[in-house]
Amino acid sequence: MTTPLRLAIAGLGTVGVGVIKMVRQNAALISARTGRDVQIVAVSARSRDKDRGVSLQNYDWEDDPVTMATRDDVDVFVELMGGSDGPAKAATEAALAAGKDVVTANKAMLAIHGQALALAAEEAGRVLRYEAAVAGGIPVIKALTEGLAGNEITRVMGVMNGTCNYILTRMESAGLPYDEVFAEADALGYLEADPTLDVGGIDAGHKLAILASIAFGTQVAFDAMELEGIDRITIEDIRQAADMGYKIKLLGVAQLTGRGLEQRMSPCLVPDTSPLGQLDGGTNMVVLEGDHVGQIVLRGAGAGEGPTASAVMSDILDIARGIRVATFGQPATRLTQATPAKAVTPAPYYLRMQLLDKPGAMAKVATVLGEAGISIDRMRQYGHQDDTAPVLIVTHKTTRAAIDAARKAFDAIDVIAEPPVTLRIEQV
Amino acid sequence: MTTPLRLAIAGLGTVGVGVIKMVRQNAALISARTGRDVQIVAVSARSRDKDRGVSLQNYDWEDDPVTMATRDDVDVFVELMGGSDGPAKAATEAALAAGKDVVTANKAMLAIHGQALALAAEEAGRVLRYEAAVAGGIPVIKALTEGLAGNEITRVMGVMNGTCNYILTRMESAGLPYDEVFAEADALGYLEADPTLDVGGIDAGHKLAILASIAFGTQVAFDAMELEGIDRITIEDIRQAADMGYKIKLLGVAQLTGRGLEQRMSPCLVPDTSPLGQLDGGTNMVVLEGDHVGQIVLRGAGAGEGPTASAVMSDILDIARGIRVATFGQPATRLTQATPAKAVTPAPYYLRMQLLDKPGAMAKVATVLGEAGISIDRMRQYGHQDDTAPVLIVTHKTTRAAIDAARKAFDAIDVIAEPPVTLRIEQV
Repeated sequence: MTTPLRLAIAGLGTVGVGVIKMVRQNAALISARTGRDVQIVAVSARSRDKDRGVSLQNYDWEDDPVTMATRDDVDVFVELMGGSDGPAKAATEAALAAGKDVVTANKAMLAIHGQALALAAEEAGRVLRYEAAVAGGIPVIKALTEGLAGNEITRVMGVMNGTCNYILTRMESAGLPYDEVFAEADALGYLEADPTLDVGGIDAGHKLAILASIAFGTQVAFDAMELEGIDRITIEDIRQAADMGYKIKLLGVAQLTGRGLEQRMSPCLVPDTSPLGQLDGGTNMVVLEGDHVGQIVLRGAGAGEGPTASAVMSDILDIARGIRVATFGQPATRLTQATPAKAVTPAPYYLRMQLLDKPGAMAKVATVLGEAGISIDRMRQYGHQDDTAPVLIVTHKTTRAAIDAARKAFDAIDVIAEPPVTLRIEQV
Repeated sequence: MTTPLRLAIAGLGTVGVGVIKMVRQNAALISARTGRDVQIVAVSARSRDKDRGVSLQNYDWEDDPVTMATRDDVDVFVELMGGSDGPAKAATEAALAAGKDVVTANKAMLAIHGQALALAAEEAGRVLRYEAAVAGGIPVIKALTEGLAGNEITRVMGVMNGTCNYILTRMESAGLPYDEVFAEADALGYLEADPTLDVGGIDAGHKLAILASIAFGTQVAFDAMELEGIDRITIEDIRQAADMGYKIKLLGVAQLTGRGLEQRMSPCLVPDTSPLGQLDGGTNMVVLEGDHVGQIVLRGAGAGEGPTASAVMSDILDIARGIRVATFGQPATRLTQATPAKAVTPAPYYLRMQLLDKPGAMAKVATVLGEAGISIDRMRQYGHQDDTAPVLIVTHKTTRAAIDAARKAFDAIDVIAEPPVTLRIEQV
């Protein structure tokens, strides 16, 4: 038995408390598996007096996480405060500069400052680990960075925001409109303080940007991601999609194409018989595709005390075992700056529009599509209600550019009540 | 860039050829990710002249894998010959004794000699890695050993023989009897030379024994596993199970109970809406449950050149990166000898029997069940055909001991045409 691994934990919310519980409850198996004891020496949080359901009396209290991060008696700084900047970033930088390994669950910080922090970690000769930042308890960072390391990764996909998946699933099962289910989710405490982080796809987009960096050896580039939230999804779209054998998911897709790196987080249709289509409620799923391994699907709880703490602990146990891997799977100095490519990979699209009751309206729609080079796989027109008739179209494979061109042309022909809903059908 | 990692590969079947292809095709990304080149220096197989579709001319040929395993210019011995004993074991032992790390895909060798080999690896200060031995391309050894390392594992389940899952799925979709689908699978080359390895559950049992050792810190104990194959499953059972909302899968389950270690590989009913129930065809799935992480589901190709080679490469890249973990996740000297426990965890059971056309027959059956302490959840009796009537029973939770007692009592009452089919309904 070597010397213990000494932790300082900043942030005592759900995850921080979960980590403290795991360190205590599973102390014996942790030392059996790593050959070392894991000890918490210091903790820090905004409020010292709050009752968190765990005793903190054996740990030094520090008011300032930055000061705590540089303590001589700390080996690993565990950052669980959140926020892309502010104390989380300052303390992480201070910890690395002071020669500490860092474990964090902070997807926003990594998505925005990942490259700079990875460089800082390498300069300091320390590791920066973040299994908990993506898909909660699912060990996806390890699977991608190590488990599939011999593969050229061809595509990464994921449903990585449980709140959005809950909302979409609940809209379908209860037949309720978006606003009503959104209010329910809010009342249940499922939403972030700023709900656009969830329903705008930002939170899930942060996670996808991190996965893309590992998968393709590129510098994390959240600002180049195409983001579209779920707030425009209607119960009609969900029903119509179901009718044609699809589910609507807030799906992240990253792939390296000849024209650059595609990163999209947007509502997509997926076949209802696929693992992604069958994912109901708040669970997360990540799909990894490699040139030799084919498709690997990982499923588990994407949030919550136990699952997220489990991921944090996996990083801590790796460090205790002496497992040291570069932040994004290879030296940060080697990561390339990818050219962003906007949805160049062709796919079928789903279009829903309200056709005005005018002679020749449908012909005009069909002409617009034809002139944009879009061919129609399936089309349904329903009866008129209030002077408009719902029209659904599933196209053959086409490009986003063609869809955008058609959308623009629709504006000019004046036979559609409002801009059409256009959703990509992702081939999974 | 440090010195290259030098491999010797014994066994040039599908997997060996796949590894050679990956080392060549992905050389650039392998060295980017590990900071080292990976080189093959020598190869060995039964026949030198066979055309394998890859050139071997840059590698030394060795007739004897044991000699090759101890070459001075080899860092890692890659054992892909198969077979629990013979050359595979001899060469693995020789490699470890000569101070080489070993990577193998050999589930039989690990399930039977895992403890001795783990001790040998530790004595030599080398690692013995085997990601490819369980569930092909799914990085399940890494997920369990490292990704969930902070958890007490509570249960491990898996569908880990693609051939059996293909047979069961095909029986259902085509409505064909077992013998016919078995013959089809044989003609398609899906079966091992000795098909009982597949359909008898032995191959999948080897994999489960390995997972159980990591999960519970116990010495691998394949000989203590309850094994039951799929050859007694009829199309009637598949149909009746489907009718009640279940699928039949060859399911491995390992869990540590108060009475010892349960390890079962047997046909079970699982809900058709669960991830396991939705797994069709030759794909593998492993379900890992931990005290904090909850349930993690991993899905992917369980066999084939690319997926299996991907798993072998993951071990090789770990070694190149300096990742060194004890064979079964903790020192072999610490692994305990578990008491085998036979299906002590209660579960509902499915019973199918042919009731003879005798007065009071059903009353006798019900009495037997009642006297064994088994209560009935659902029962169906169909009309008589040829003097017998099919009866289906789903029990409430009960024990295997109670089911066995009932089976014995059925023998004595003489109202059932043949011993009843009894299948466990696993709660997933």
